Amino acid sequence: MMCSGVVCYDYLPEDIRAKFRKEDMLLSKSILDGVSTFGEALEKSGFKGEENNRLSPARYRCMFETHIEQGPILEDSGDKIGVVDCVLGMFNYRLRFYGQTVHAGTFPMPKRRDAFYAASLALCRLHEEIDRLGIPDLVYTTGEVVCHPCVHTCVPDYFDFSVDARHESPEALQKVLKVVLSLTEREWAGCRCEAVKAWNRDTVYWDKRLVSYVKEAAEELGVRHRYIHSGAGHDAQFAAYMLPTTMIFVQSKDGLSHCEPEFSPVSHCTAGASVILNAVLKADADD
Amino acid sequence: MMCSGVVCYDYLPEDIRAKFRKEDMLLSKSILDGVSTFGEALEKSGFKGEENNRLSPARYRCMFETHIEQGPILEDSGDKIGVVDCVLGMFNYRLRFYGQTVHAGTFPMPKRRDAFYAASLALCRLHEEIDRLGIPDLVYTTGEVVCHPCVHTCVPDYFDFSVDARHESPEALQKVLKVVLSLTEREWAGCRCEAVKAWNRDTVYWDKRLVSYVKEAAEELGVRHRYIHSGAGHDAQFAAYMLPTTMIFVQSKDGLSHCEPEFSPVSHCTAGASVILNAVLKADADD
Repeated sequence: MMCSGVVCYDYLPEDIRAKFRKEDMLLSKSILDGVSTFGEALEKSGFKGEENNRLSPARYRCMFETHIEQGPILEDSGDKIGVVDCVLGMFNYRLRFYGQTVHAGTFPMPKRRDAFYAASLALCRLHEEIDRLGIPDLVYTTGEVVCHPCVHTCVPDYFDFSVDARHESPEALQKVLKVVLSLTEREWAGCRCEAVKAWNRDTVYWDKRLVSYVKEAAEELGVRHRYIHSGAGHDAQFAAYMLPTTMIFVQSKDGLSHCEPEFSPVSHCTAGASVILNAVLKADADD
Repeated sequence: MMCSGVVCYDYLPEDIRAKFRKEDMLLSKSILDGVSTFGEALEKSGFKGEENNRLSPARYRCMFETHIEQGPILEDSGDKIGVVDCVLGMFNYRLRFYGQTVHAGTFPMPKRRDAFYAASLALCRLHEEIDRLGIPDLVYTTGEVVCHPCVHTCVPDYFDFSVDARHESPEALQKVLKVVLSLTEREWAGCRCEAVKAWNRDTVYWDKRLVSYVKEAAEELGVRHRYIHSGAGHDAQFAAYMLPTTMIFVQSKDGLSHCEPEFSPVSHCTAGASVILNAVLKADADD
């Protein structure tokens, strides 16, 4: 999504070129020899391209994107295809805990300020408080952690974890954010807690006319389908700043993605391809 | 302690030479160029030494070691010197949690198996259960963590943390270990939990005669002192397999060690040096 973000002016190309570090890039080793930024790697790859060949609203009328669902909702409901209506709004924060590193063998328990224990207490409270809100379809994830010094003979003096929350409704997200921020109002196991915003995005709604073409195409083809939100970000989300845009989801086996067992059978992919073709023909006939 | 472990036959030199990897070694960069094991780095350093120059019970009568306390006990009691009587027994385990990685935005909460959340729930339970045992002077530490894939948009499918527990009494350690192992008898947030032993050690008692010389030396010099256990491992602990051994502790400011604020004032170090000198003279006069 880095490229669609740049093309659609959500990211500044200069920032991307300078900022991305070598160790963050999933490119083949040979391209990375002797380069230290994304900009340098892009030049070296020979795929930099010309700015005047870019996606432009002057030359394109709309965009359809087909993608695997990356979740289990279609599989559970027995639908082959998801008629996507929006990309969920989200926020991403880091919760940081500051303690004191001391020796594992020599420092009495009552005087310790253990940042990993602090973070675990706060994470359990986070789940309790958010779950108590009872917001349907809310998802929240604490997937990335940093522990320092991360040595078995030392009490950690620093721990942080990411908090990613997604929902269609800005009011629902506001309630969740209030819980996240409330964790900073007290100490956890003697450790100060701090919340730092990484980024957020508002819910991006797809073009209603294009969504109706996807729905009609699925109906006419007799493909079982349902409306669905996208919880993941997609290129179409950036393209929506520029062009009328929509998406089609294909079932993911067990809802798994970005891991080895990710799988969608050919029959479902064919259904997705048939629906996108017929939806595109409808959009073409309409103009 | 790697060297004292080898010299005193607790570790096999061949294992150490082959096993230690470059990234684990805190040696200067230039020594590490072109080497991949500790054995290779040792050869290159020019400090390998001769086996027949090693510490040997045939040529030494006993060993005294002075060290900073690395804890706040002496500072809190107002004593300059600790007369150390033993190195605490300990065990070290890893607790591993196995979940399923899924996408942060697309996978409904009730179906998730989040290994970081599982580990946090278990860590909170670990503290509750161990603290309920009410074992005086017990220390336990969960200082090292591994999280996979450790990405803010993915639910972690794997998390583990170290559990280090130390106490003089083997019965007390056995009670704590029972709590640690009991965590594996259930699932945590849908994740399987596994305990893997890393190592343990029994309490090593110092030579009673040498301990009494340290105590007498401190009394005769008018240095405020108290008996204390060592929670940390020390070279003297390995040397004790070979020779009568004991230790003297000097106050650590705020009990901090292995971090920048580690500090012991000159007056306390001088007291430590005076006590060791006089204790050594007593041992020498005795034989």
